[in-house]
Amino acid sequence: MSILVTVTCIKVAYVNTSKPETIRTPSVPKERSTSLLTDKYELTMLEAALADGTAHRQCTFEVFARRLQNERRYGVVGGTARVLRAIDDYVFTEEQLESLDFLNAETREYLRNFRFSGSIDGYREGELYFPNSPILTVRGTFAECVILETVILSIMNADSAIASAAARMVTAADGRPIIEMGSRRTHEYAAVTASRAAYLAGFTATSNLEAAHRYGIPASGTAAHSWTLVHVNDDGTPNEEAAFRSQIETLGVDTILLVDTFDIEKGVETAIRVAGPNLGGVRIDSGDLGILTRRVRKQLDDLGAHNTKIVVSSDLDEFAIAGLRGDPVDIYGVGTSVVTGSGAPTAAMVYKVVEVDGHPVAKRSSSKQSTGGGKRGWRAIRASGTAVEEIVTPFDAEKPVVGSLEVRELTVPLMRNGTTVPDLPTLSESRDYLAAQLVSLPWEGLALSRNEPALNTRFVGF
Amino acid sequence: MSILVTVTCIKVAYVNTSKPETIRTPSVPKERSTSLLTDKYELTMLEAALADGTAHRQCTFEVFARRLQNERRYGVVGGTARVLRAIDDYVFTEEQLESLDFLNAETREYLRNFRFSGSIDGYREGELYFPNSPILTVRGTFAECVILETVILSIMNADSAIASAAARMVTAADGRPIIEMGSRRTHEYAAVTASRAAYLAGFTATSNLEAAHRYGIPASGTAAHSWTLVHVNDDGTPNEEAAFRSQIETLGVDTILLVDTFDIEKGVETAIRVAGPNLGGVRIDSGDLGILTRRVRKQLDDLGAHNTKIVVSSDLDEFAIAGLRGDPVDIYGVGTSVVTGSGAPTAAMVYKVVEVDGHPVAKRSSSKQSTGGGKRGWRAIRASGTAVEEIVTPFDAEKPVVGSLEVRELTVPLMRNGTTVPDLPTLSESRDYLAAQLVSLPWEGLALSRNEPALNTRFVGF
Repeated sequence: MSILVTVTCIKVAYVNTSKPETIRTPSVPKERSTSLLTDKYELTMLEAALADGTAHRQCTFEVFARRLQNERRYGVVGGTARVLRAIDDYVFTEEQLESLDFLNAETREYLRNFRFSGSIDGYREGELYFPNSPILTVRGTFAECVILETVILSIMNADSAIASAAARMVTAADGRPIIEMGSRRTHEYAAVTASRAAYLAGFTATSNLEAAHRYGIPASGTAAHSWTLVHVNDDGTPNEEAAFRSQIETLGVDTILLVDTFDIEKGVETAIRVAGPNLGGVRIDSGDLGILTRRVRKQLDDLGAHNTKIVVSSDLDEFAIAGLRGDPVDIYGVGTSVVTGSGAPTAAMVYKVVEVDGHPVAKRSSSKQSTGGGKRGWRAIRASGTAVEEIVTPFDAEKPVVGSLEVRELTVPLMRNGTTVPDLPTLSESRDYLAAQLVSLPWEGLALSRNEPALNTRFVGF
Repeated sequence: MSILVTVTCIKVAYVNTSKPETIRTPSVPKERSTSLLTDKYELTMLEAALADGTAHRQCTFEVFARRLQNERRYGVVGGTARVLRAIDDYVFTEEQLESLDFLNAETREYLRNFRFSGSIDGYREGELYFPNSPILTVRGTFAECVILETVILSIMNADSAIASAAARMVTAADGRPIIEMGSRRTHEYAAVTASRAAYLAGFTATSNLEAAHRYGIPASGTAAHSWTLVHVNDDGTPNEEAAFRSQIETLGVDTILLVDTFDIEKGVETAIRVAGPNLGGVRIDSGDLGILTRRVRKQLDDLGAHNTKIVVSSDLDEFAIAGLRGDPVDIYGVGTSVVTGSGAPTAAMVYKVVEVDGHPVAKRSSSKQSTGGGKRGWRAIRASGTAVEEIVTPFDAEKPVVGSLEVRELTVPLMRNGTTVPDLPTLSESRDYLAAQLVSLPWEGLALSRNEPALNTRFVGF
């Protein structure tokens, strides 16, 4: 099982471990180290496990969700690629080790040399998931798996929550572009990965420059009310025209003018007077957007500005977007609701040990029962391409047979011996993949209303 | 106004600027730079403003919230200290500048030399706020103020949302300790600052090691179900006793044992048999916590373990905490609800220009009106210490007179000429300050139910 996978690997053997482990010389800068993004109890459990020998037991941990949030019909897996990167960066610097003064010397020495050397299989990013889908299957020693719990869940829960909410908005927008502009309404770094998750789900662009820089997402923007307001005359009276004229001079006639600072009708009139009928677009950020967009469309058309687009923003969520489907909206700008998961800011995924030294294990306490054993996910699909059910088998089982249906394997290799498998899909590929998966849902599966999951999850072979 | 404030300052004059600005040689490492945590439109507005000269107009921007989330009675200001740090770290590296290829050379040169040189006044961290409280007042050129919008709001909205939710939980817990353990249910770095905001609000400890390391918050933890489950016998049958025995051997009899993996009654019996009556605590993470804690307390007392504490967790929010007030709970562990703001994951704060070259400005579009002019906040307080109302005056106004009431100034200096003022309160001091402020609310102001804000905000002098 264990092989030298990169040229920077060195091979060492730990006491009591049944297989040699591969570790790499730590070369992660302190700022990128993810090792303290961890709950204290993971390291105190590690210490006790090193003392009693259970640290070296071969375990399987599983990431899954017992339910979909807010009775939605499906979830979208987000964060997988970020998890693999975070595990790669899970190394302890000397300064970090010094801060762990509640641990004994043996435990700190274990952490000093720590590199995850196990394997991860799971649902690819952009895959749909349902209750009890085995989203990630993490295999390795108890020690190396247990300490990754928090960082794995933080990333999967945050990114999947955003991707799951965003996908519903993309469906509601029915082909019209959506710009993510919610950075200001969430933690400054959560904003960056929220942009990424929204793009994964089919958003068109982001306002966030770090997300554009880091992930290659198209960046987009219009102007703020402060832009219009800073253009006062010497006597302090407003001068919207000066603001529009200046914006066009610098950014070109393709730009989008914010027309609702004072009076929308006058704003539109001024915009077209200044820009001419080839103005790129106008943005409306307040009021009854249905009524306003119909009025503004008529006004623009009357002024000959038939190609000037109407961009709307102002606390839009999937329901408001759907409510505007019959109105002349060209582009949606979505902020707060997407970065906060539209009522479900976390995905409720958990990370549970399901197998110890080949034995299935599970807790039995009320309402939080789970099924023991490593698992693999499959989806049965009609010839028409419509998905019928989610099937979960033991990890090593053969492909299940479901009548004459196609059964597609959802669990794919993600990490082997601590190294991410090569050629994982890019963000853009995962985005295309999700778009294709959404089409495979039974038609009621895309409804925004609360109901049962679109697919039932069936356990086979347990 | 402008002076050399640190030994690393150099003085330069920009074209068209009415006052010389102080900038410091950029020495912020790339990983700490906050400059791309910005919406694209801020930099395109900057470009247009540099072109038309408005970049150099003296402006006042204000952070405020039009409403309290979820009809709560008060909000808690969180994030102020982090905002000041983020502004200090708002510098552009060459690599970042290269990524901004949509900007012209003049704009990039402006950013290359950028250091905020303005002033910030506002509510201190841990202060209560109400609708339209002037939480931060940011003064400087349009250029230097407008580009800080996103990063200021991200931090204030995230931290204030958590602090506001957490304070209600602390009130509900009525003096009993609460451990923050929600890292796994939010973005991996949002988790760190959520710990900080929860501690500010009165939480006792955190599970998050990075928060402990970075902010000096006490770290705490128990054990996971995986700890019990990894202790299987050779035949795969569970051995809870082995898990408890090992935990006590390594972590001492003071430790907290998780007793609900299989059967709580047997778990408690095993725990006391192994640990003796001086066991630190037991944790229950599932089931009806009211019934269970009463049963477990009786069982512990019957076994002579009168000092063994009962720790409860399992999707607790402020309402569940309050519902357990009559039950024998010693410590609450709170996760998802606190890190997601308990139904309000953002604080709905906005950042608006309110003054340009001495003229008050405000947008007038429907439902999002605001009051122009820089502002200062005050609170009128009875001799008994009970707050009566929030008063907002123009920034330069004298202290308002409200009958014989004490009027306390809420707006304090935070940054001068781009440099954070010395001796700002520590996190621990802000935590104590908030605790004192909560006591000053009218008694119905601490109620958990939805209603009007506890204090009315009155504008005087506009």
